[in-house]
Amino acid sequence: MKKNNGILTVILIMTIILSSCDYKKELSEKTKSKKEISDPLSSWNDTSTKKEILAFVGAATDKNHPNFIPVIDRIATFDNDGNLWAEQPAYFQLFFAIDRVKAMAENHPEWKTQQPFKAVLEGDMEELKKQGEHGLIQLVMATHAGNTTEEFEADVKDWVSTAKHPTKNVTYDKLVYQPMLELLQYLRANDFKIYIVSGGGVDFMRAFVTEIYGIPEEQIIGSRIKTEFDYNDGHPVIKRLPAIEFIDDKEGKPINIQKIIGKKPVFASGNSDGDLQMLQWTASNKYKSFMLYVHHTDAEREWAYDRESHIGKLDKGLDQAKKDGWTVIDMKNDWKVIYPFEMN
Amino acid sequence: MKKNNGILTVILIMTIILSSCDYKKELSEKTKSKKEISDPLSSWNDTSTKKEILAFVGAATDKNHPNFIPVIDRIATFDNDGNLWAEQPAYFQLFFAIDRVKAMAENHPEWKTQQPFKAVLEGDMEELKKQGEHGLIQLVMATHAGNTTEEFEADVKDWVSTAKHPTKNVTYDKLVYQPMLELLQYLRANDFKIYIVSGGGVDFMRAFVTEIYGIPEEQIIGSRIKTEFDYNDGHPVIKRLPAIEFIDDKEGKPINIQKIIGKKPVFASGNSDGDLQMLQWTASNKYKSFMLYVHHTDAEREWAYDRESHIGKLDKGLDQAKKDGWTVIDMKNDWKVIYPFEMN
Repeated sequence: MKKNNGILTVILIMTIILSSCDYKKELSEKTKSKKEISDPLSSWNDTSTKKEILAFVGAATDKNHPNFIPVIDRIATFDNDGNLWAEQPAYFQLFFAIDRVKAMAENHPEWKTQQPFKAVLEGDMEELKKQGEHGLIQLVMATHAGNTTEEFEADVKDWVSTAKHPTKNVTYDKLVYQPMLELLQYLRANDFKIYIVSGGGVDFMRAFVTEIYGIPEEQIIGSRIKTEFDYNDGHPVIKRLPAIEFIDDKEGKPINIQKIIGKKPVFASGNSDGDLQMLQWTASNKYKSFMLYVHHTDAEREWAYDRESHIGKLDKGLDQAKKDGWTVIDMKNDWKVIYPFEMN
Repeated sequence: MKKNNGILTVILIMTIILSSCDYKKELSEKTKSKKEISDPLSSWNDTSTKKEILAFVGAATDKNHPNFIPVIDRIATFDNDGNLWAEQPAYFQLFFAIDRVKAMAENHPEWKTQQPFKAVLEGDMEELKKQGEHGLIQLVMATHAGNTTEEFEADVKDWVSTAKHPTKNVTYDKLVYQPMLELLQYLRANDFKIYIVSGGGVDFMRAFVTEIYGIPEEQIIGSRIKTEFDYNDGHPVIKRLPAIEFIDDKEGKPINIQKIIGKKPVFASGNSDGDLQMLQWTASNKYKSFMLYVHHTDAEREWAYDRESHIGKLDKGLDQAKKDGWTVIDMKNDWKVIYPFEMN
């Protein structure tokens, strides 16, 4: 009896300690249904893609496996547009800029005759395309700068809760990929620290993607404009200036990863040539790493595009993935569902 | 005997589980004296400073207290030089640059006649001071750029394990403040996410401060130079370029905090006017926040300096701290010991 008490005491101590430890989460996972435990990627078909992901995570978390990765080095980086949520017929952030121009037009009568604003207000997408990159930058600067970080955050939050996708007719936060949500959760449960590394604006993303993906603001990396600090008589603000500071795309991705995270990812996922350098950087990790491309092959449920697309062009990346044996998701065949609402 | 085996088995399982858990450290803490467990800030005297810290953390972690702060918003930012470790008679990173110049001189015969290198090689500190900021930047560029991030990291690691402080005659990692180590651990145990936000070079700090403070690389923010990505025939590297990209000081601190963390700290600690804007930004948090200044008042055990100092000047900050009721550490009277080695 005395010895049993000894065991109980040890178990009790262990329980108290674990109750405020990460293992709490794992313990609560154990109360879920067996189905969920046995298949963390339940929206994925049993193809080689899923098997490769499971095998990598299994090895990375097995102390006795040669490909084990210590928790502190389990950094995973995910592109956002076209990788965690859709990006057609245009980047969602462009729709935000267009909607903001419309909302702000009342205070800008000059926009009625001034491009690219005129094209936006008249819904003339052909003319908007003709305005090219310069027009796009003008749109972004007019709608993303000239306010404080707090004001901008409020603008984005307001837009997200009301604006709808032009063809799918649902709010944009509904157009996330269910299988990727499961992958994020699976990696998190295995102590990977997940970062978004996107060409999208970092403050745009921070205003709402935290809620969608469960990734905290400080693990979101993106493009940014210049800012300045203003003490503002004891009510300090950070002002957003109309000048681009950093484009988080192509070579910018590994550069930003090194600047902000300071170590190489062991897992990287993207869907375009803009992610290629991030995947190359990840592939050079001293640990066995995992490079994952989303290939948009499903014209029916989503969109099908790759080598010739203006948005999310995947050409060189597809070649290197084949050459180097990186994992490529075939959306049409690998995913049982695309969006969470298809599960209802 | 059998039951003893049972106990041993439980202990074994417990050991395996805890071996990959943060609480490993805490368990080893439990073997310390009761005094230490009941007092997470045992190197602090029982002055108002300590009481204010304990009261803030107590309220921030008490769900029923009006000043409760949700875990996701418990962001704490700490300056490094003069705040977590010493900074006299010059920033330690300058000693690194000086030591690197000496180590690299063999391959740079031109430095024998070229300033500021000549002054460094001849140990002529007066001449070095005359070279001013321009000379300092030349030193930094010659010793911090022109290599890859991995090569630079190796240089710093090598220096840290061998170089000694000019007057204290110990390696630099010994000159950290024991009371601040306890404060970091206390905040971490209360689910604060701790960032270093320093004027020092981010890659310089990342090479070794993780081990000293238990803060992961991705939570270290600092000044940085420009970099570029080079695919390098399948062996990608990030090259360090001889141009300053961002100085993480004064207004740069809140700007960088917003860029990289994306939310306001609830706790900020610094020791100079270079930290003032970070503390002002923190003071504007919607949550009740904590602003902490280290005041160097101990000429005997450390160094005494404030309003007139060239290094770590604390003038406007001291005025605002008094005016706004921020907490100011009086090193001489608030700290029982300064460095960990004084505890032996």
